[in-house]
Amino acid sequence: MLTRIDHIGIACRDLDATVEFYRATYGFEVFHTEVNEEQGVREAMLRINGTDDGGASYLQLLEPTREDSAVGKWLAKNGEGVHHIAFGTADVDGDAEAIRGKGVRVLYEEPRIGSMGSRITFLHPKDCHGVLTELVTSAETPPAH
Amino acid sequence: MLTRIDHIGIACRDLDATVEFYRATYGFEVFHTEVNEEQGVREAMLRINGTDDGGASYLQLLEPTREDSAVGKWLAKNGEGVHHIAFGTADVDGDAEAIRGKGVRVLYEEPRIGSMGSRITFLHPKDCHGVLTELVTSAETPPAH
Repeated sequence: MLTRIDHIGIACRDLDATVEFYRATYGFEVFHTEVNEEQGVREAMLRINGTDDGGASYLQLLEPTREDSAVGKWLAKNGEGVHHIAFGTADVDGDAEAIRGKGVRVLYEEPRIGSMGSRITFLHPKDCHGVLTELVTSAETPPAH
Repeated sequence: MLTRIDHIGIACRDLDATVEFYRATYGFEVFHTEVNEEQGVREAMLRINGTDDGGASYLQLLEPTREDSAVGKWLAKNGEGVHHIAFGTADVDGDAEAIRGKGVRVLYEEPRIGSMGSRITFLHPKDCHGVLTELVTSAETPPAH
């Protein structure tokens, strides 16, 4: 069961400049940064608010570490902007299976590691009215089963 | 001060079909629907979670009511997908003025009426690293001044 907007993933060319834009314009501060070599991104998480399922909503700023990564290719085609949206769940495995059973393409056979040790998967944007959609179970969320 | 992700605005060609996708796939239900003639959209708000500032986060599904509306033109160029993101604030007037003072273009001289009687304005995407960004003060939020 999806219980929150976990984050909005935003592709950018220069992570440091984009972090500075969000700080200077809105006062948003960096909560966490990391490099995810598998995804080919350097990223910053900006925590915006807490949510009533005990989690939080973030902006996830993504700079590709290589041009042939998924975000690198997307950026070359689309320019900077919203790359994906993510919903939080206590059970990414169960939800991904249920959604796969409804005929929506799930991009990973098994969830992979996302930001801050979370477990994530993605749904095909062509099956989701044009929206690349991620499902996330946070590392700190107890498993639902 | 921006205190939550208020909503993610998603442009779609067929509102009823898109509402049904979100219901059937994730169990998200329609919280509110309306037509905003000024914006040229028919829309549905799906409430996803409550937020720790006393508000909530929504998906806002937007179908243009005419091809020459902002969303209609965007859809013709980009296809279905994420159209904008919105941050909630208790004081859209004060925040818009402060952000204008930092050199970011604010698209309306004064806030206009958005979903559910809220007061809204938009920031120019070219000044926001490619992200069309909305500021929202909900109708039920007491003014900050």
